[in-house]
Amino acid sequence: MSFDRLIEKIIETKNPTVVGLDPRLEYVPSHIQRRYLEDDGWTLKAAAKAIYAFNQAIIDEIHDIVPAIKPQAAYYEMYGHYGIRTLEKTIRYAKLNGMFVITDGKRNDIGATMDAYTSAHLGTVTIGENEVEPFGADALTVNGYLGTDGIDPLLKVCRSRDKGIYVLVKTSNPSSGELQDMKLADGRTIYETMGDMCEKWGAEAIGKYGYSDVGAVVGATYPAMLTELRQRLPHTMFLVPGYGAQGGGAEGLKGAFDEKGLGAIVNSSRAVMCAYKKEGCDEREFAQAARREVIRMRDDICQYINL
Amino acid sequence: MSFDRLIEKIIETKNPTVVGLDPRLEYVPSHIQRRYLEDDGWTLKAAAKAIYAFNQAIIDEIHDIVPAIKPQAAYYEMYGHYGIRTLEKTIRYAKLNGMFVITDGKRNDIGATMDAYTSAHLGTVTIGENEVEPFGADALTVNGYLGTDGIDPLLKVCRSRDKGIYVLVKTSNPSSGELQDMKLADGRTIYETMGDMCEKWGAEAIGKYGYSDVGAVVGATYPAMLTELRQRLPHTMFLVPGYGAQGGGAEGLKGAFDEKGLGAIVNSSRAVMCAYKKEGCDEREFAQAARREVIRMRDDICQYINL
Repeated sequence: MSFDRLIEKIIETKNPTVVGLDPRLEYVPSHIQRRYLEDDGWTLKAAAKAIYAFNQAIIDEIHDIVPAIKPQAAYYEMYGHYGIRTLEKTIRYAKLNGMFVITDGKRNDIGATMDAYTSAHLGTVTIGENEVEPFGADALTVNGYLGTDGIDPLLKVCRSRDKGIYVLVKTSNPSSGELQDMKLADGRTIYETMGDMCEKWGAEAIGKYGYSDVGAVVGATYPAMLTELRQRLPHTMFLVPGYGAQGGGAEGLKGAFDEKGLGAIVNSSRAVMCAYKKEGCDEREFAQAARREVIRMRDDICQYINL
Repeated sequence: MSFDRLIEKIIETKNPTVVGLDPRLEYVPSHIQRRYLEDDGWTLKAAAKAIYAFNQAIIDEIHDIVPAIKPQAAYYEMYGHYGIRTLEKTIRYAKLNGMFVITDGKRNDIGATMDAYTSAHLGTVTIGENEVEPFGADALTVNGYLGTDGIDPLLKVCRSRDKGIYVLVKTSNPSSGELQDMKLADGRTIYETMGDMCEKWGAEAIGKYGYSDVGAVVGATYPAMLTELRQRLPHTMFLVPGYGAQGGGAEGLKGAFDEKGLGAIVNSSRAVMCAYKKEGCDEREFAQAARREVIRMRDDICQYINL
């Protein structure tokens, strides 16, 4: 069970957080930008190389105290196929360093096409007699708007290759309620309905900590809903974005966790990547500043839970 | 207005269809596979090169009679960053040949991240003093589950750079109704609600044919809903998947179009790419077989509309 592996890393590091690697070129300290961009020219290729050097340094510095990274696909697609190469290399480097990798792609499509996304991000592709793993993440975020046949190909790979998914349930952004909070005729909200689908999709395979391989994305910015959904979806592990930069506080996260301090992993991206800017330290210390921010965040959240 | 450009191409070619380029390696005729894979080895790189050669030959053969192509991102991601390079090159080649390009990515995220997806697929990325266009499509399919702030960055680029989006409303797959057909407390279904949001998002900029730059994806497999949504969403252009391979017939598409035969573009992917297999012709004639299928499809659909 993929999320058993993640939960074991969380217990081992006593840290229920994941570092989002969403690296805009602006976040990369100028000495790294100069090293790659002045030599190679101000191109997508050079930008992607600079970003990989930045990611590597952060992974080197945090891999022993953080269970997982969550690269956001959009920030790699921004740099074209060079950026995607950096995504591949970042995933590989994090895994080599023992980290669990959640690719944040929010992918969604009809069955046959979802098969292709699944092969790409969690599975393998057969070319002649070779079986190749294009990205090789441990888990992928997905959007469930298309219903079960857009999720089925993922479930097959979750079970055959020990992978997991997080389905968007209640997102962290200000306008998430426009559709997600609407009431259905049966009295449920749309996000509750999506949450109920996660429980159903996950029901076939529950791991030893009580969670299935189908998780849910629930924003830190809506603490009351986090608590309500934790009760409602007892077998669904939560990926919780929105802590820090987006305004979600640590105390409000309490409700996302079970009585053992498990069942959720909280993401922080910009606050970690740009910790050196906030600290005002020498930019050459960006990775150490990221480590300090990771520790601050861990301690901030852990004071409210029983991990 | 991006969709004015598309509609003009539809009128010019008298063809309201788009060819989906969703190329699994299995679809590529064996003589092309051999040319690339026997030399370079059975790798992602060689597969991606073979797929580009396949796409190029199809574009060469159909660009004068089809207004647009719709590459599906999943089938390029399957081949890692090499596949993404083929996506970039395919988009560029189709545009050089005067075609309108809709990238089918169904992307979705919160505002800041949607900014990154928008820059990647429809906009530009600034690197030092260079402004680079990573993919350069004319339109992108997106998922509206996150509400307005996940759509706003797209609308800005639609207006400043003459681009369009298609939002998933009622998808073509068998289980699309699980969530999309549910009734809200206010009496509307979820797909109607999403459709209404498209009208709202598009309202600021209506083109000369009466359609905004915010379209909707509505499946050919649900003809009654196509007709109902055409009435309900008078300014929303439809992208209609599901014709052919997925089971949607031409007569059922009639309702997607307005009285001038405009307002919709119908996609076909596998039937065109694999026409040579269905015809049983020499595989070296795959591109000509694709052209014959495009003509067959155009004539099949046009008999029911006033284009």
